[in-house]
Amino acid sequence: VMNGIRDKVLTLDTMNQSVKNIEYAVRGPILLRAMEAEGRHWGVKKPFTEIIRANIGDAQAMGQKPITFMRQVLALCQYPDLLSSPSFPEDAKKRAMRILQSCEGHSTGSYSASAGIQMIREDVARYIEHRDGGIASDPDNIFLSTGASSAIMAVLNLLVSGKGKTRTGVMIPIPQYPLYSATLAEFDAVQINYYLNEEHYWGLDVAELQRALEQAKAHCQPRVLCVINPGNPTGQVLSRENIEAVIRFAYEEHLFLMADEVYQDNVYAEGSQFHSFKKVLMEMGSPYAQQLELASFHSCSKGYMGECGFRGGYTEVVNMDPAVKQQMLKFQSVRLCPPVLGQILIDIVTNPPQPGEPSYQQFQQEKKAVLSGLAEKAQLTEKILNKQPGIHCNPVQGAMYSFPCIQLPPKALQRAEELGQPADMFFCIQLLEETGICVVPGSGFGQKDGTYHFRMTILPPLEKLKILLEKLSQFYAKFTQEYS
Amino acid sequence: VMNGIRDKVLTLDTMNQSVKNIEYAVRGPILLRAMEAEGRHWGVKKPFTEIIRANIGDAQAMGQKPITFMRQVLALCQYPDLLSSPSFPEDAKKRAMRILQSCEGHSTGSYSASAGIQMIREDVARYIEHRDGGIASDPDNIFLSTGASSAIMAVLNLLVSGKGKTRTGVMIPIPQYPLYSATLAEFDAVQINYYLNEEHYWGLDVAELQRALEQAKAHCQPRVLCVINPGNPTGQVLSRENIEAVIRFAYEEHLFLMADEVYQDNVYAEGSQFHSFKKVLMEMGSPYAQQLELASFHSCSKGYMGECGFRGGYTEVVNMDPAVKQQMLKFQSVRLCPPVLGQILIDIVTNPPQPGEPSYQQFQQEKKAVLSGLAEKAQLTEKILNKQPGIHCNPVQGAMYSFPCIQLPPKALQRAEELGQPADMFFCIQLLEETGICVVPGSGFGQKDGTYHFRMTILPPLEKLKILLEKLSQFYAKFTQEYS
Ligand SMILES: Cc1ncc(COP(=O)(O)O)c(C=O)c1O
Ligand SMILES: Cc1ncc(COP(=O)(O)O)c(C=O)c1O
Repeated sequence: VMNGIRDKVLTLDTMNQSVKNIEYAVRGPILLRAMEAEGRHWGVKKPFTEIIRANIGDAQAMGQKPITFMRQVLALCQYPDLLSSPSFPEDAKKRAMRILQSCEGHSTGSYSASAGIQMIREDVARYIEHRDGGIASDPDNIFLSTGASSAIMAVLNLLVSGKGKTRTGVMIPIPQYPLYSATLAEFDAVQINYYLNEEHYWGLDVAELQRALEQAKAHCQPRVLCVINPGNPTGQVLSRENIEAVIRFAYEEHLFLMADEVYQDNVYAEGSQFHSFKKVLMEMGSPYAQQLELASFHSCSKGYMGECGFRGGYTEVVNMDPAVKQQMLKFQSVRLCPPVLGQILIDIVTNPPQPGEPSYQQFQQEKKAVLSGLAEKAQLTEKILNKQPGIHCNPVQGAMYSFPCIQLPPKALQRAEELGQPADMFFCIQLLEETGICVVPGSGFGQKDGTYHFRMTILPPLEKLKILLEKLSQFYAKFTQEYS
Repeated sequence: VMNGIRDKVLTLDTMNQSVKNIEYAVRGPILLRAMEAEGRHWGVKKPFTEIIRANIGDAQAMGQKPITFMRQVLALCQYPDLLSSPSFPEDAKKRAMRILQSCEGHSTGSYSASAGIQMIREDVARYIEHRDGGIASDPDNIFLSTGASSAIMAVLNLLVSGKGKTRTGVMIPIPQYPLYSATLAEFDAVQINYYLNEEHYWGLDVAELQRALEQAKAHCQPRVLCVINPGNPTGQVLSRENIEAVIRFAYEEHLFLMADEVYQDNVYAEGSQFHSFKKVLMEMGSPYAQQLELASFHSCSKGYMGECGFRGGYTEVVNMDPAVKQQMLKFQSVRLCPPVLGQILIDIVTNPPQPGEPSYQQFQQEKKAVLSGLAEKAQLTEKILNKQPGIHCNPVQGAMYSFPCIQLPPKALQRAEELGQPADMFFCIQLLEETGICVVPGSGFGQKDGTYHFRMTILPPLEKLKILLEKLSQFYAKFTQEYS
């Protein structure tokens, strides 16, 4: 009690310490700086004309247009008066009517079943079957979700148990998408880092999985292996052989496998192809197909649609104990249901216009335009960055990011230490303040000690991206000179 | 290992036991029965023509029409081509353009800031100021959310800490909305029950708060008091004096106050009026206004709009430690952002068409029609149920539910015990199987030992509700006769 004011009930000291321990870089200090920089009064001195946000995988924020058919169906579902309007194609109307029929009270304003609208779960299962060359998928194994994020968190939540040395350990790639480390901190689970191999295009080595696992066994009970494919922030696409090896490893070590496949439509490099863990697992046959427990995640935020704001996603669980599936359903029930419009988007993603339908051609055209644009930007990014001595950038085989390695001179490291900042954070902040370019330091995703990276998206429009990459290279050259 | 099949990684035994301990009635066994009953092949014997779901507060599922203006704005935001269509009113277009301007990339498909779109947070703050007669509200204290549910869970998550006797205790009303008990089980917090006074219209007695608190102090550290006003499932509306007393109690006992005010627009009884905790708190002045920590919750799922499927909500925090507010923001960042369309609905709820604008009259008419319809149904429910000896129903002053007390004959209690069911669950299942009426047993919400209740919504259309209430009364008469 000071000046008659007593301590608050809820303070940093009294709050949930697990929540306090969460670190989250993508929307962390660098974004706050960017927002502050935008709002700041620079007077005549402001050294750039706009902030370019290459910090977050948000396609439409960077100017990508939504897929017309998707928005037509959404508008029709929202405001069914439009069903009589001549300006909407017939297949969009038919689709909207089919969806409305499957909503309680024929309205998107009602709660859905907790696992999502049944018809949409069926559409998702059919999509997976088609994607995986006919391998069966059961709608009962599909849970719609609030973005992929909520499903990933829900499955992890189910998996975390035990205390002390029996506490659940979860293997995650380093570098990782920080949802994983944040969630593990929140749930007080043990994070087990396995390092992706930067020298081999950020490949996933089973020997490294084994090393990480053996080391972790001394202080926790490893029970989960998370894989992100295509990778964020690293952009690699796993080969089929690699996936088989990962599955064998998970089976032998009795791990639950979580496959984050939200970038399944985002594969650009020649020779790269997306293989779903489910398909490979099933094709490997006994004992894997019958026994390995797998959860795969997808989202409407990425791919060619980039509909992040709707928070749509799903997970397919394979070989999950039916009693645990009931628990997962109960868990979702408490939260009532995922946003219905996100569910509708998932329906369109998994059940797009078919050949012969009026919207088919335009849908395919728009989809291809986005994906080939991304492929072009993926190449461009690698090419321009690799021209700059001191920056090394692996090919962006998939996803929406590059994660270049930067050499930083000793004096820059020293200066960063004086400021109490990780060295790549120091670099990124200087970059932002001088050029308006907003990228995220590698330290937010994890990296080998003594190496420095940043993550940037390839999402800005081509011309802007070119300028960004060139400015960034120039800034790097200037920065290293200044500190050498 | 049996037949070469080893145990699964994730089973009821190995899973997160806190999640396993969650109980959730509203979407629990009774709903599963209802769904099963709908799908079952009854042959000629099916004793009813349809399932009437009075189990969940989902207005549009029960046939309530959405507010036209809301859906127009949503459609325009989804599909901006419509901005040039002559069939939308000018104010809806203006509104949609204003919202699109505030979205990244001018699209609802982009992620928003983690706490929600800044402009909408400002609109919410202005709404609160207006609601509370001019008392200031700071947009920085507003967090948009995924329904009220996610905000309630987030604030509880922040508050739960400590171990053993210092574990956070959270006071909740009994009967309660089961999100609270479920969340406390998930977070392993200590649930402290205070009983609402059924004899006094489900009023909240401070003496009972005190009793519950003192008793709990022996085994946990009580730090939070939750109040639901208007009440779910109990339908009471707190008087201003009562709210003042609760605030004094929370202050004296150094508790964080959580006010669930999602039914703030749902007040029907003559003489009843909604008073926000924030307003009363501020008007009480020192030391309460400066020191009591409060979080208040609102939603687009209830009120006159009933837009449950969009998962929109917000919380206003008052006197929260700024460092904790940062933690809350970080917590939301991990989940990226609330659904943008839910945010838009919150914007319209808090910033509806103004007098003089083209949509003003229709909006007000539609709003009034819904609310006066609910008021009529609230009265009807009380009137019809109270005619039946053995059923006692308090007035439905607000919200969307009645929670009548039913006397059950000893033989029915005995039969329920034989079946291993709570007695009111037994009653509700029999009711469902014979009449198709789906209500939720009181045991799912909590009740005094030895009393039995059920919760039903007042949402079915008037004519259907009448039939439901009469059928229910008849069934009760028959049931008690059968078991006496
Ligand atoms: C690898 C990965 N997984 C999951 C997500 C979550 O996306 P959302 O919750 O929007 O579906 C993201 C988003 O960037 C991601 O990069
Ligand atoms: C008292 C109360 N609080 C919160 C909620 C959560 O509603 P939502 O998450 O849809 O906003 C409900 C829903 O029924 C409720 O009755």
